[in-house]
This record gives sequence, structure tokens and C-alpha cells, in this order.
Amino acid sequence: MKVVIALGGNALGNSPQKQLELVKETVKPIADLVCDGNEVIIAHGNGPQVGMINRQMMNEKMPFPECGAMSQGYIGYHLQNALKNELNARRINKEVVTLVTQVLVDENDEGFIHPTKPIGEFYNKEEADNLRKTYGYTMIEDANRGYRRTVASPKPIDIIEKNVIEQLIEKDTIVITVGGGGIPVILKDEKLQGVPAVIDKDFASAKLAELIDADALCILTAVEHVSLNFGKPNQIDLKNVSVSELTTFIEEGHFAKGSMLPKVEAALSFVRGQKEKFAVIASLEKAKEALQLQSGTIIKN
Amino acid sequence: MKVVIALGGNALGNSPQKQLELVKETVKPIADLVCDGNEVIIAHGNGPQVGMINRQMMNEKMPFPECGAMSQGYIGYHLQNALKNELNARRINKEVVTLVTQVLVDENDEGFIHPTKPIGEFYNKEEADNLRKTYGYTMIEDANRGYRRTVASPKPIDIIEKNVIEQLIEKDTIVITVGGGGIPVILKDEKLQGVPAVIDKDFASAKLAELIDADALCILTAVEHVSLNFGKPNQIDLKNVSVSELTTFIEEGHFAKGSMLPKVEAALSFVRGQKEKFAVIASLEKAKEALQLQSGTIIKN
Repeated sequence: MKVVIALGGNALGNSPQKQLELVKETVKPIADLVCDGNEVIIAHGNGPQVGMINRQMMNEKMPFPECGAMSQGYIGYHLQNALKNELNARRINKEVVTLVTQVLVDENDEGFIHPTKPIGEFYNKEEADNLRKTYGYTMIEDANRGYRRTVASPKPIDIIEKNVIEQLIEKDTIVITVGGGGIPVILKDEKLQGVPAVIDKDFASAKLAELIDADALCILTAVEHVSLNFGKPNQIDLKNVSVSELTTFIEEGHFAKGSMLPKVEAALSFVRGQKEKFAVIASLEKAKEALQLQSGTIIKN
Repeated sequence: MKVVIALGGNALGNSPQKQLELVKETVKPIADLVCDGNEVIIAHGNGPQVGMINRQMMNEKMPFPECGAMSQGYIGYHLQNALKNELNARRINKEVVTLVTQVLVDENDEGFIHPTKPIGEFYNKEEADNLRKTYGYTMIEDANRGYRRTVASPKPIDIIEKNVIEQLIEKDTIVITVGGGGIPVILKDEKLQGVPAVIDKDFASAKLAELIDADALCILTAVEHVSLNFGKPNQIDLKNVSVSELTTFIEEGHFAKGSMLPKVEAALSFVRGQKEKFAVIASLEKAKEALQLQSGTIIKN
């Protein structure tokens, strides 16, 4: 089975030292999938990492797309190193590589008109006004905690390096790609040009799965299931759910914005209209069981 | 012709904004080589860039190999974006991609015993002592300018992702790899493990050219030729030079350590014992002429 794995924040670490340790655990369930004979393509988030890089590289006026590229190198290196070591330990001879990946977005995406994705740290009013003036940043007040820069969160349209990803999958190579949702680029005057934005990593993963004709999209997170009435006494964990059922649950407002909602929407966007394909939202630890349809929330038509 | 291009510092920029502009020029002679039908593999330095990243990420205790990985993402993104745009403008449909690349070194390399490669900024004696104590850094006094951290500069033994590089070359994809000489890793307890070191980018490029069986190694820099008595009234520019002649010139001390010497040594290491292959050290602007043996210093047996 050809499967796109989307790793969430729990798969990575909040400091370089912690991440280096944590990824050694993260790659184990991924190696299990490889052992089971699956063709695995790995995507991952970068929220805390790109926030850290952006903050530290401020003195150098490092633009946001470049910070994203740096985070792809940083996280990709840790993942490819750890997964290669894990596969070697299991005597599985497979190549693992990270591609620096650009993802095309539409410059007319409504996300650019009203940027809503907060990045980096909090500022007081004076600092926020200063950043607005000096860099043209959009700064938005965040309930009592101060001001934060917000950038667009446009929808992914295409993956610039998709053909290379396919070349590598054909050769049985494991590819780490669209890190942090990809480096967002627009097409302007026939040139690809980086723009400050954050593409949701689950949407980018769904687009990747669609473009490379994957059989399954596996969104791995910290919880075992998608739930209705999450955290309430009447919580219901979803095991199997159809596209139409899940669409109704979204309309009923069951899923938190910026948390479970984008995962559910990304899963739907991949499965919709595809009879043979499925998406699963599951815990990192139970990735193997999830792909065997024995854990997580399975989304099918 | 299959050719490894090693880009020097003059091909990149000292700030993100300058680099983004400069790479648009850098990729033009590379695109010329592609137009001429060459299979091109691109390597590049990262000295100023990794120094900047290392300095800014100090607060986060970002280890040096991770800084190298970040610089590969940052520089690779700029190069792949600019080259793809340049090829598109010329209506050449070719994929360009950056691989995060690890390069194997020997933990017993003598470089690790006496680290000599200075990185990052200057410190006063007190700061230097502090860094020695806190992080175990090797700090060396640099003639009147203060103290700098020095790391090992070990020789490259192998490129971990070499099979993937070959997979991509076969598919006619242009690969950017071993950025900054590669992320240095040692094999310890059967695991690849990053180490703080700087692999000379010209040596890494020569190793790459050897491993992928390239026809030519093209080291591009700011000057048009390798010269004897450089900068003196009796300067002689070398056009064609044999391995044995060049070896003699090295022994006579014609080439500056840390500048022309590693380029000349890297070129020699690629050509030595290879009758059909050549290396050329030339200016970036005249890359096309150099590969046609009409510019630069051609090194052959």
C-alpha cells in the first residue's frame, strides 16, 4: 500500500536535543509500516520549530519562507538520520531522503487578504506597532496575551517537486517532503516566488497523497481517535466514519479549529469521491494497527 | 557529460535578501551547461551562512550539524527555486531538487584531535573560557582579533544518500547536494551520528564526483585561473596542467591554505589515476567555456 504519513507536533521535539531523542521513537512505528511492505512517504509539521527559527533569525531579517526551508533541513535531517538507523538495525536496506519542497499557493487565496495564522512570540502594543511599520507585518491582538504576527494560511494547489517525489517512490526510496506544509510559493510573472505564509501540513499531506495517487493518508497525532463531544462525559470515539457522516459532524461543530478540524477536513478532501481510498486519523504509536484498520478513526466513502 | 559543479562563496550572498538576488545570476551559467546537454549535479559552500545560523541559534543550543542541515535547506531552496525559474524561462522542462545530505567521516580522522577550522564570530578571553567550560568547545586565538571556536575538518569518506543521488541523475533530474560539504556524520555503534565539523566543500564535491562516476569536476570560484606567484608581478595563470605538474606546484607552496589549496587538492584527488576524466577550476561566469576546455585551469593526467 502506498501511504502518506503526516506527523504531528508530538512526533517532534521542542528543543534540538529533545527532538534528536524523540525522533528515535517516532521512526519506530514508521519502520513497522515499512516492514509490513508499505511504500511510505513522510510529511511533518514545523510549528514550534519554524517559530523558534523565525524568532532567532530576526536579526538577520530572514524571510519566513526561508525559515520554513531551514526547518525542513533541520527536521528532515533528524528524521532521515533516525529512520535510516532504525531500518539498518532491522537489516532493511532502504534509502531515506529529505527533499526541500515548495508548495504552490494562489496569490489570490482569501488567506492573503485576512491573515489569520499566528506565528512566533507575543509583543506589546508598542513593539507590535513598530513591526507593522518596519516590516509591514500584520499584527493581531491575542486575547490578553499581547500581539502576534499573523500570516496567511492558503490552500495548497500543487507540489513543485511532485515528479521527483514520484521518481523516488518508484525506486523504493522513502521520501520526507512538504515539511511544515511546504515552502509556500506563488507564480508571479511566470516565476515561482516564496511568500510569507503557513500551509497547513495536513492539507499539504492530503494534496501530496492525491498527487502521487496514494492508497491511504495516515494522519498521526497524540490521540487515538477523532471524538464527538471531546473531553465531555458523553464523548464518543469514532472508529469508522463515512464522508457524509463526518461532513455532518463538522457542520455540528464537533471539531476544534486549528486542532482536529484541519485533520478531519484534510482527510475528507483526500477521500471524497475516491471509492478505493481511505484516510485514518490515529495515534503515532498505533500507526501499524491503524493501517490494518484496527485502530484510529477510519474515514471512507 | 556528467559534471559536478562546486559553487564557491561568490555564488551565494551574505544576507538572505542579497542571496535571493545573487542566485538568479548564479544559475544562468549553470542553465547554460544544462542547455549544452550536460547532466549537472550541484554542490555548494556554506561558510558565511552556517556561521550566521550558528551565531543566531546559539540561544537554542542548536548543535553544529543541525545548523549545517538548516543551511542546506536555506541555500538549497534559493538555488532550486532560481534554477527552476531560469530553466522554465528557457522552456527547458527539468526537475531541480535539493537533498538534505549526510557525509560520512572517520571519528579517528586526525582533524578531530586538533580542530583547525574556525567558525562563527570572535570572542574575548573571558567569553572564550566560558564557552570552553560550558560547551566543551575548542577555542583558538586568532592573530589579534580574539578567540574563535574551531571544529574538525575531516575528510569525506562516503555520501550516505549517494544511491538516491544516482536514482535522480538517471531520471534526468538536477540534484543540489552535499551543501556546505554535507552534514558530517560518524558511524558509532552501527548508528550514523552527527558531529560538529566542517567538511571542505571541494573535497566533498570531489568525493561526490568519484562516487557517481562523473566525467568532470568543475570548481567555480571568483578567479578565472589557478595561478603561480599569485598577485605578484611574475604571476602565471595556468591553462592546462597535469597531475604531476600540479603536485610539484603544491610542494613549491604556490597555493594559499583555506583558499586555492583545497580546490587544487580536491581537483587532483578526483583526476588522479583517471585517464578519461578532468577537473577544471574556473570562474562562475565562464563555466560554459570551462567545460568546453576554453577557460579556467584544466587538470588532467
